[in-house]
Amino acid sequence: MKRYLGIDIGASSFKYGVGDSKHGLQCFDTIWFKEKSLSAFQEVTTEILDRVQDQGILSIGIGSPGTISRPEGKIVGLNPNLPFFSGLSPRELLPQGFELPVFVDNDANLMALAEADLHKSSFTIGITVGSGIGCGIVLGGEVYHGAHGFASEAGHCIMISDGEKCSCGQNGCLEAYSSVDGLRRRLERQGLPYHALSLPKLIALRTKEEELDRIISEGEDILIRAVANLVTLLDPQIVVLGGGAMELGLYDINKIKKAVPQYLPEAHRQKFHCAIAGYKNRAGVMGAIILCERNTL
Amino acid sequence: MKRYLGIDIGASSFKYGVGDSKHGLQCFDTIWFKEKSLSAFQEVTTEILDRVQDQGILSIGIGSPGTISRPEGKIVGLNPNLPFFSGLSPRELLPQGFELPVFVDNDANLMALAEADLHKSSFTIGITVGSGIGCGIVLGGEVYHGAHGFASEAGHCIMISDGEKCSCGQNGCLEAYSSVDGLRRRLERQGLPYHALSLPKLIALRTKEEELDRIISEGEDILIRAVANLVTLLDPQIVVLGGGAMELGLYDINKIKKAVPQYLPEAHRQKFHCAIAGYKNRAGVMGAIILCERNTL
Repeated sequence: MKRYLGIDIGASSFKYGVGDSKHGLQCFDTIWFKEKSLSAFQEVTTEILDRVQDQGILSIGIGSPGTISRPEGKIVGLNPNLPFFSGLSPRELLPQGFELPVFVDNDANLMALAEADLHKSSFTIGITVGSGIGCGIVLGGEVYHGAHGFASEAGHCIMISDGEKCSCGQNGCLEAYSSVDGLRRRLERQGLPYHALSLPKLIALRTKEEELDRIISEGEDILIRAVANLVTLLDPQIVVLGGGAMELGLYDINKIKKAVPQYLPEAHRQKFHCAIAGYKNRAGVMGAIILCERNTL
Repeated sequence: MKRYLGIDIGASSFKYGVGDSKHGLQCFDTIWFKEKSLSAFQEVTTEILDRVQDQGILSIGIGSPGTISRPEGKIVGLNPNLPFFSGLSPRELLPQGFELPVFVDNDANLMALAEADLHKSSFTIGITVGSGIGCGIVLGGEVYHGAHGFASEAGHCIMISDGEKCSCGQNGCLEAYSSVDGLRRRLERQGLPYHALSLPKLIALRTKEEELDRIISEGEDILIRAVANLVTLLDPQIVVLGGGAMELGLYDINKIKKAVPQYLPEAHRQKFHCAIAGYKNRAGVMGAIILCERNTL
């Protein structure tokens, strides 16, 4: 069996695992970083390499938040969750002189690649709901990157004219309404006392607090409309929803399944298929491993 | 020189031409149909075949409005501008026993294919503004059809929650605000006395009539936001705007060029490139010819 290391960089931790797509993950773990800095990230990466050094890995795949230019592999544009990472390449996390092949892609792209593989679907849209909204698009079995590597930024499609301020500087983005950080900012701006609560507490309070419920419902409705627009435009076989907030039940997958077709053209309605991410919080790591499988000679 | 026949079915006429993409069109003409029926369409097609019978064409490409299922080639879903066409294939326009190869695609897809060829751009989004809003997406040099042939229905992406009624039955579609028929319906619903005027008269009156200007400006603004969302999602090399209403100047291409980047993420902003359709009203015919060139053995 050939083994690969997949690393999934998140907003507060690195997830990693070793394995392949046929046999699954032989190990999986999470390491939280101390701070958002290059040196802290390099430290975590070195720790991971130490832990897996006996496993005979052939290459390393890294999924990172942010827009990654191609072919340079550098993170470009604003990167609100990891600002220090702009202008760098995730390859710089590895020690100098590191000899194994390293492959890099956006974390949501790799989630979509893993779910496309799991669902045997050549046309897959993956959406992650967490601190931000991630989106990856697999077309004809391959991650779609666009002309410059900037594709699939669905979180920054503008859903509401002159809408809520987003962390990207625009107004009315999907992420400003439907991401966890977006919800928190909206709660804070509206003077509601919930924005600092943990996500499970927010979700639990929803049935009791009308204003909180209204804001979360609005996030869900805008996510539903965004999914419908993606389907209208890209006609995928499946839309997979994942990310920490979907796993915790912030939005109701059954409601989304029922509501999206109401916003679709007639032809698309009958083909619409939607599921919760099968690899759950391991989708990014598995996608990074599949990236290795496809590119390691 | 190899010659192909391209036919572009519109809301009131068939355009056709013979030629190839290298040498251009050797002939080009328009035939208006008497009514929207299969027999009237077959009559026009036979007239075209009669006119070009001496030109030694190798195959025929047909561009049609509507969503075309693949691989069947049938028009599916509601087709507001040509309702009789639903369930049929454009191939049925040709006489029984017709022997040349026939290739079929959506009209806006073929416009995008022609403009991609003209601009030497492998990642091209084409948008046509006419009775409806058409959209074609070329990715990696090929028309993108999606999993079932239903892709690129940007005209029916929902831009405004609970917005204006569209001819497709949904509310708030791009087409309900930015197409010519959409503008006319909005003018009529608001009791404004302009909806029956010709498009050139509507455009000329715009500077004098505030309410008319407001409705057209809103259509333009929503088109701008739709273009921005397409770019955010698909990261093309170029967006080409065409169709009769763009040619007549309903919307200002220079305003669109300036306004779209304001709605783009930072990385996309510097790469944004937008142009008016170079093939003008011949883009659909030329796209049909390129479809023939690519598929004729």
